[in-house]
Amino acid sequence: MTSRQVARLTADTPAIADAHFRAEAEPFDPDARPDGYLNLGTAENRLLWDLVGPRLAALPAPTERTSRYAPLHGTPELRERVAALLTGTCRAPLAADEFVVISGATGALDAIATALCDPGEAIVVPAPYYGAFDTDLGGRSGARLVPAPLAAADGFRLSAEAVDRALVGARRAGAVVRAVAFSSPSNPVGEVHPPGVLADLLDVVRAHDVDLIADEIYAHAVFGDRPFTSALDPSVNRHWAERTHLVWGFAKDFALPGLKTGVLHTRSREVLAAARALAYFAPVSTATQEVFTGLLDDQGWVAGFLAEGRRRLAESHRHVADLLDEHGLPRAPAGAGFSVWLDLGAWLPGPGAAGGPASANGRSLADGFAAEERLWRELLDVRRVSILPGAAFHSPAPGWFRLCHTVGAPLVTEAVRRIAAHVHTGRTRGRADGSVHVKGDRP
Amino acid sequence: MTSRQVARLTADTPAIADAHFRAEAEPFDPDARPDGYLNLGTAENRLLWDLVGPRLAALPAPTERTSRYAPLHGTPELRERVAALLTGTCRAPLAADEFVVISGATGALDAIATALCDPGEAIVVPAPYYGAFDTDLGGRSGARLVPAPLAAADGFRLSAEAVDRALVGARRAGAVVRAVAFSSPSNPVGEVHPPGVLADLLDVVRAHDVDLIADEIYAHAVFGDRPFTSALDPSVNRHWAERTHLVWGFAKDFALPGLKTGVLHTRSREVLAAARALAYFAPVSTATQEVFTGLLDDQGWVAGFLAEGRRRLAESHRHVADLLDEHGLPRAPAGAGFSVWLDLGAWLPGPGAAGGPASANGRSLADGFAAEERLWRELLDVRRVSILPGAAFHSPAPGWFRLCHTVGAPLVTEAVRRIAAHVHTGRTRGRADGSVHVKGDRP
Ligand SMILES: Cc1ncc(COP(=O)(O)O)c(C=O)c1O
Ligand SMILES: Cc1ncc(COP(=O)(O)O)c(C=O)c1O
Repeated sequence: MTSRQVARLTADTPAIADAHFRAEAEPFDPDARPDGYLNLGTAENRLLWDLVGPRLAALPAPTERTSRYAPLHGTPELRERVAALLTGTCRAPLAADEFVVISGATGALDAIATALCDPGEAIVVPAPYYGAFDTDLGGRSGARLVPAPLAAADGFRLSAEAVDRALVGARRAGAVVRAVAFSSPSNPVGEVHPPGVLADLLDVVRAHDVDLIADEIYAHAVFGDRPFTSALDPSVNRHWAERTHLVWGFAKDFALPGLKTGVLHTRSREVLAAARALAYFAPVSTATQEVFTGLLDDQGWVAGFLAEGRRRLAESHRHVADLLDEHGLPRAPAGAGFSVWLDLGAWLPGPGAAGGPASANGRSLADGFAAEERLWRELLDVRRVSILPGAAFHSPAPGWFRLCHTVGAPLVTEAVRRIAAHVHTGRTRGRADGSVHVKGDRP
Repeated sequence: MTSRQVARLTADTPAIADAHFRAEAEPFDPDARPDGYLNLGTAENRLLWDLVGPRLAALPAPTERTSRYAPLHGTPELRERVAALLTGTCRAPLAADEFVVISGATGALDAIATALCDPGEAIVVPAPYYGAFDTDLGGRSGARLVPAPLAAADGFRLSAEAVDRALVGARRAGAVVRAVAFSSPSNPVGEVHPPGVLADLLDVVRAHDVDLIADEIYAHAVFGDRPFTSALDPSVNRHWAERTHLVWGFAKDFALPGLKTGVLHTRSREVLAAARALAYFAPVSTATQEVFTGLLDDQGWVAGFLAEGRRRLAESHRHVADLLDEHGLPRAPAGAGFSVWLDLGAWLPGPGAAGGPASANGRSLADGFAAEERLWRELLDVRRVSILPGAAFHSPAPGWFRLCHTVGAPLVTEAVRRIAAHVHTGRTRGRADGSVHVKGDRP
């Protein structure tokens, strides 16, 4: 018999992980397995290995020092190099001592939530949000997440007012709210939050006297016209820096998710002490810390690599955006990240949700999400395309899907073709327009 | 303001970690820093780098597959190789699917305690025990540890009766006991538990209907005459295998503590599901998992390496044992591990504890531990020798110290010289015998 506290973790596996491994087990191959799965559900950037691989191979072998115990909240060398990198990116002076290195951004999210919250206390999160936040922020800490719904009408842009409303509502309902958490740039939408909105958000958290958790893991994955602004940038955050905690990692910007290396930055001495104590349970292998120390050592290479990464991301995004336009599939605008946030609301199957957005009416919303799930399953089972349904991101409106396009143009082309074929064939509804070239019924 | 749940972690840093980093900052060097610290406080095996280093250097560079997300409870490749290795060591068939790979044995201990216990529930642990168990088993899970005191008179041998008494006592005091945890072979004592005692222990936990957590991280570090018997060996465990959970890792047997890679083995489906969910928060870098997969791949090398490791351990232990005998410093007998359990009870400074073991009387015991702490501080501050006091291991009797000898013979010689000089000079008491060659007052 297992404990009650672990039950909240085993109750359900994150849908993201499930779909990932299913799709990975039988991957599409134009020649060997043409009916294989196209995995566009996982936020991996597969466009950079030619740049990263040779650098990894050229790093020196582990030394005797590598073999020995090191500070469990990160080696000073790695913390210094991360501090230097992010000081530039965030345009805020970040000290090595303010960082904790930990097992993935996941570990950093768990640490900050556990440092701030006791079981049952609440964290407000603008929605749609990265679905694993539920597990990462709440699974071990016992915190519960309260979504602050953003508006579908403007493509789910971040809104300080929406966060304020959720904070007021949660408190009115008796919740002890400890923090607001959000991803910046945002996953799944891909919005680069404008400085004005960030400044407003900081005013809101300050007015409510709650901490801000900014997951900036996509900080360097910005390809659009609007530059990235950190939640710690002094131009937006003059009074709340001690209560603002940054999460970052090497999974996205350096395309090394397997190495599960994240950091937490905080200027609060108390939170830092707590995070160090928690990092003790989820330290990163010294060998892997040395890999990242080695990569960051060459600042010239890093600058060039990140610039080329942005260029390739822009290209990848343009490719998928053009394809979607061609096939008449709408999406929210994006300036960062690895995905597009696809609006298939017009093609949800079954009664009650087709032909337009679901109403605010509860029944209708539930129908909408049931239809979304059906469409998701059809795409996965029939078309063998793995993208993730909006429900996995607590989308406030049904019909949205996250499609990760950083898997190479041929896969994306094939996936969009299959999706378009599926929605435009047989049961096209609503706003499918005549310009769409409906292809056959191949998977 | 941080959470209440994190307060139990930040209240005090583990003494072990503290002393380690202080001693490491200014290490002894016969030429450059003759008054530097001798760190014999940390259970690191520094005798094997010449064997391990070249193997690590010869491993292939990470591949594109390394870079990507892998199952967060461990790659199938590593779990298979660990299963094969430990199936041999434990003389029990262990399947790859029954393993979870996690960040250190520390992570494995945290996972099993969290899977079994809710906050406030108890785990009985024979004492003296590895001091970090308090943090590892209790820090995040909220479990509290109840020591089962072993007898100083027989060198703190494991006793099933002592565990039974502690279980009965804890329950009588109203505790909800979920498990018994112990290290096997034992740290700090270095005992290889005899099969008969293990069988008795399994009868006791079965009679009390509690789980058994066997930390077998020193399974291959056995150098004495008695061979290792796993708690899962069918000859001692016929009825309680589903309730017996093994912890192991690469820190000790492979002398790679920096790489923080541990495993949990369980045959309980429920516990396995819980452990997998918890491993999500503390996965090991794919790059590091591949290092271990690569090492274990060559079974011939592994067998030779482990045999040579045992040979060197035996030699290192003989060296320190001879030195201690020479200086008249008593110790408990050991057949495994990296340390000796040193009895300096005869030389505790100050009133109330000198001249013999402290009585069972509470005041006297407290005095004894205060004196033990003074002697520890003197050795650290004046003699610059870092060994750990028994209190750090919840020793039931004061005056014992753990000295790790796997740091090379010259350091050990110097350290024992300093300790002997300290206790035999000025304030020699009790059973210091005339045969001791008391040297000067150098550090
Ligand atoms: C916003 C966000 N935070 C955290 C993570 C997890 O990062 P890691 O793999 O380093 O734990 C992801 C990965 O998808 C993410 O998108
Ligand atoms: C009995 C025991 N368990 C666990 C550990 C911790 O192992 P790891 O460094 O893999 O977390 C140690 C290390 O000293 C130990 O002695």
